[in-house]
Amino acid sequence: MKISARNAFAGTVEHVTTGAVNAEVRVAIAGGGTITAIVTRDSAAALVLAPGRAVTAVVKASSVLVMVDGAGTRLSARNQLAGTVHAVVEGAVHAEVAIALPGGAVVLAVITKDSVQALGLQPGVAATAVIKASSVILAVSA
Amino acid sequence: MKISARNAFAGTVEHVTTGAVNAEVRVAIAGGGTITAIVTRDSAAALVLAPGRAVTAVVKASSVLVMVDGAGTRLSARNQLAGTVHAVVEGAVHAEVAIALPGGAVVLAVITKDSVQALGLQPGVAATAVIKASSVILAVSA
Amino acid sequence: MKISARNAFAGTVEHVTTGAVNAEVRVAIAGGGTITAIVTRDSAAALVLAPGRAVTAVVKASSVLVMVDGAGTRLSARNQLAGTVHAVVEGAVHAEVAIALPGGAVVLAVITKDSVQALGLQPGVAATAVIKASSVILAVSA
Repeated sequence: MKISARNAFAGTVEHVTTGAVNAEVRVAIAGGGTITAIVTRDSAAALVLAPGRAVTAVVKASSVLVMVDGAGTRLSARNQLAGTVHAVVEGAVHAEVAIALPGGAVVLAVITKDSVQALGLQPGVAATAVIKASSVILAVSA
Repeated sequence: MKISARNAFAGTVEHVTTGAVNAEVRVAIAGGGTITAIVTRDSAAALVLAPGRAVTAVVKASSVLVMVDGAGTRLSARNQLAGTVHAVVEGAVHAEVAIALPGGAVVLAVITKDSVQALGLQPGVAATAVIKASSVILAVSA
Repeated sequence: MKISARNAFAGTVEHVTTGAVNAEVRVAIAGGGTITAIVTRDSAAALVLAPGRAVTAVVKASSVLVMVDGAGTRLSARNQLAGTVHAVVEGAVHAEVAIALPGGAVVLAVITKDSVQALGLQPGVAATAVIKASSVILAVSA
């Protein structure tokens, strides 16, 4: 499979909470850390998601927010991956920001160029990639 | 109504599953196929969503992912619309990819230009538009 | 905290509905109006979200849709903020549209340039910013 989403994190299902419509799936990422995904209950069943199952968490770069100076604030977004800005590529309206995580993974975020300025994002700056659980897609081998 | 979302699929509600907070709505699309939407329970009630109700499923192009060579992989995303790339328009960072479905509908996806390269997207290539159910908005006539 | 999302609305939690996986949080916005957010149940607990709690509703500009001529249509999206187009900045594929709300707040939407044309968006035009509840992140002071 090749998919347009720029972020793919290999891991293992750690915990599944099932509701009437949705399910919350916690995935332990190879290299450390956790990604939480909200998928439909039907998807969780169809993909046989249960603890121990190997999955890949897929996130579109445009679904990633970038936060700096987060001390003193708590966000509802389940996934907050702290790292260091590795690269910034600017377009006309948008920019692509690569954040390197301690475990070696890189998270790509597409944000507006104005936000890059406002947050002072440049290589070496500490930054956190913020991802809502509902923005995460899970992939499994058939 | 005119809305900025580039994708609008006319259809009929087929099934509604209601939870405490959200509801899952399955819509049979004119021309064949199904789109699943997650909306709030309150919205499902306010829009009187029930089997037989005529609705339009609205999806922003930036919420659409594109997958190729999907054999051997299963995704949690409920909506996977297989078709053929019809056109690719490139910008500075992003590109707009039009995927024609067998039933005649066209799905527009905005993805990064790098992904267009990585996936080898060009007219005639088989590709699947992937849309999370939580990215779908439903519209009804008042 | 500085975050890349271009929209941040200060307000107060008005009501919380909790399900098995998600929670719906209704926030009364300073200056009038309401924003509804869907967050995970765990986040609602971790952030101690309850009526009276001061929160900021954060929304990425790319998660905002723009609607004109909405009479006669009802959308499932919980947040529909009616205002007037204040500014439009065009890029290669995308454009950034600022919609001024009656209470003084401004909502920023990133949509495709084609949509700007199709909807006839220019300063002075009446337009509604449409935001799915699942696209809203809530922030609180730690």
